[in-house]
Amino acid sequence: MTHRTQVAIVGAGPAGLILGQLLHNAGIDSVIVERHTRDHVVERVRAGVLEQGTVDLMHEMGVGDRLAREGLRHDGIYIAFGGERHRIDLAGLTAGRAITVYGQNEVVRDLIAARERSGRPLVFEATGASVHDIDSTHPTVRYRLAGDEHEIASDFIAGCDGSHGICRLAMPSPVVHPYEREYPFAWLGILARAAPSCPELVYSLHEHGFALFSMRSTGVTRLYLQCEPDEDLQRWPDDRIWGELTTRLRTNDGWQPAVGEITQKSITPMRSVVVDPMQWGRLLLAGDAAHIVPPTGAKGLNLAAADVWRLAGAIGEFYGTGSEVGLRTYTERGLRRTWRAQRFSWWMTSTLHRSASANPFDHKRQLAELDYLVHSQAAMTSLAENYAGVPFA
Amino acid sequence: MTHRTQVAIVGAGPAGLILGQLLHNAGIDSVIVERHTRDHVVERVRAGVLEQGTVDLMHEMGVGDRLAREGLRHDGIYIAFGGERHRIDLAGLTAGRAITVYGQNEVVRDLIAARERSGRPLVFEATGASVHDIDSTHPTVRYRLAGDEHEIASDFIAGCDGSHGICRLAMPSPVVHPYEREYPFAWLGILARAAPSCPELVYSLHEHGFALFSMRSTGVTRLYLQCEPDEDLQRWPDDRIWGELTTRLRTNDGWQPAVGEITQKSITPMRSVVVDPMQWGRLLLAGDAAHIVPPTGAKGLNLAAADVWRLAGAIGEFYGTGSEVGLRTYTERGLRRTWRAQRFSWWMTSTLHRSASANPFDHKRQLAELDYLVHSQAAMTSLAENYAGVPFA
Repeated sequence: MTHRTQVAIVGAGPAGLILGQLLHNAGIDSVIVERHTRDHVVERVRAGVLEQGTVDLMHEMGVGDRLAREGLRHDGIYIAFGGERHRIDLAGLTAGRAITVYGQNEVVRDLIAARERSGRPLVFEATGASVHDIDSTHPTVRYRLAGDEHEIASDFIAGCDGSHGICRLAMPSPVVHPYEREYPFAWLGILARAAPSCPELVYSLHEHGFALFSMRSTGVTRLYLQCEPDEDLQRWPDDRIWGELTTRLRTNDGWQPAVGEITQKSITPMRSVVVDPMQWGRLLLAGDAAHIVPPTGAKGLNLAAADVWRLAGAIGEFYGTGSEVGLRTYTERGLRRTWRAQRFSWWMTSTLHRSASANPFDHKRQLAELDYLVHSQAAMTSLAENYAGVPFA
Repeated sequence: MTHRTQVAIVGAGPAGLILGQLLHNAGIDSVIVERHTRDHVVERVRAGVLEQGTVDLMHEMGVGDRLAREGLRHDGIYIAFGGERHRIDLAGLTAGRAITVYGQNEVVRDLIAARERSGRPLVFEATGASVHDIDSTHPTVRYRLAGDEHEIASDFIAGCDGSHGICRLAMPSPVVHPYEREYPFAWLGILARAAPSCPELVYSLHEHGFALFSMRSTGVTRLYLQCEPDEDLQRWPDDRIWGELTTRLRTNDGWQPAVGEITQKSITPMRSVVVDPMQWGRLLLAGDAAHIVPPTGAKGLNLAAADVWRLAGAIGEFYGTGSEVGLRTYTERGLRRTWRAQRFSWWMTSTLHRSASANPFDHKRQLAELDYLVHSQAAMTSLAENYAGVPFA
């Protein structure tokens, strides 16, 4: 069965769904195909920090009502080391830019609801997807649904299917260069039924390693511990997790995370990937399909939002005026933001984690970095402008 | 033969000489002993960039006349990469703090002249020096001069004799912890009879590695190239040096260093050392005896000046009021500035050098760091406040 659309979107994560919404608002048709079930997509736990630009975009798209009601706007974050918490006044240092804590799955839920209201197609459980004729002006996506073969005839394919998806692999390998870096640690993350004991995030460096206190709502705390890349969750019963979180996060003023039932545990690896170029012919990559950042800077979801905002603009320009300038510069503009995010994520990661290869000099230097950071208006502003995020462009 | 003084100063580099001058101005007696000849001390080529605080100190000490006439005040520096030079407006970003190019040997020359005017002793060619009884209130320095044995009976010994001197080794090894880091490269430096073709310093990252365009006067250019730690100068005839300097420094606007007769060539290793504590009993270390920084941030001489400014203050307080607070906090205050300088020097070094262990991702991330730096007011301010230097404290 053949479908005809303007933009075939592979993947119904935040990148694909935001793109579909932006295109819909611009009167451009799309078909979104997703290999997982709807429940899987809605329930998978991922990022939870939205940059100011992503929040603004949700409102501009008309899908910000629940975000406005339930999202937790944070004007600052804490950096903790040596037993002290130091607040970084994000909003004060960036003329009002802040972050909003709102789970990626909530973003996805809102966008799926909007998609359904739009009446545009969103196909779950589309298996065996493949892309074809990306060098032509009529690329196609083929997939199977409930045993039937389908083909989407399109003008453009947006590869929003993540780092393990098919679109990245469809880029011609001799010209597409992936830049990669593994980090020698991972994060053990938990969700806990516990009211957050601090109203803002706490990033901590302890001699045992990194820990992050975060939250998803007024009743759910999200916490992370630096661990080994090949860490075995079996070795981490709840008591050990809480003991280690308390040790790494507790500050001299007596603050520590509130304990509660652990409802989810997972290991998040840490790596950086940049695919260059982000496009080939009529196939354009966005989000994790184009780049992976370590989670420390909270940039993954926000980079995806910036990508598809640019992509929707370029496609809109193409249909509106016939200009291909936006499309031709998609990679250049995208890589600029991507490398800035990689730089920032690398800096936050290397500044806040203990590395087994670091000697005592390196560790003292790392503490000096944190001490400088929290005492320099310029250094705090640099963190703030990156963490709260510069406007999409 | 026994001499009696208040402060025995070992080493007549900038640290020892500035300390002697500050003490003299406070009416405190000192004896400076130096193992090298006067000519050696005056002529050795070292650093050449004075922070604002060091310039201010030279004037406060009454030894700034020639510095004011011959020093080259620079309100900015250039960072070059990708064929472009980007100016960092040091003075504009720091409410007027700037650097002054004035060779360390010129500083030493001015201070020796002042020492001679003061009439206080300055002993060159003092060999076999040793320190004794540093745990007591009457430490001594012994040395030989022209075959005779001498002893200085003092209240305090200031160890200003560099990283290979005797004072650092006299600290009790179980309690004194040196933090160290080797860097996997060195600098090949030259002095050339050539009028500087740019009025300010140019720090460049090229795919061949780091290069620095600098100067000592209106007729002498000082240039550096990143090289191997075990580089053999024999492999660097003048033509090769100029070829490589031109390749690494030339920018797309046609700028490049002017060529001239090379009058001096040397290899500077890159390492970091911090001695903690900086004092034991009545022995107090200052300058290179206490810490070594890689030359990239131009912090070595300036750290030494800040050390002895604090030390002179502490000793003056002791004689003036009997308080030992300044002496007791000498290490704590010194290490704070030292670690900030180590952090900054490490950042400048790692940002501007090619590392053999870096993969293509790391190199792109490094270029993203530079791109972010020259486009962010906050990042430029952070560089400027560190490079021009915060006030002594």
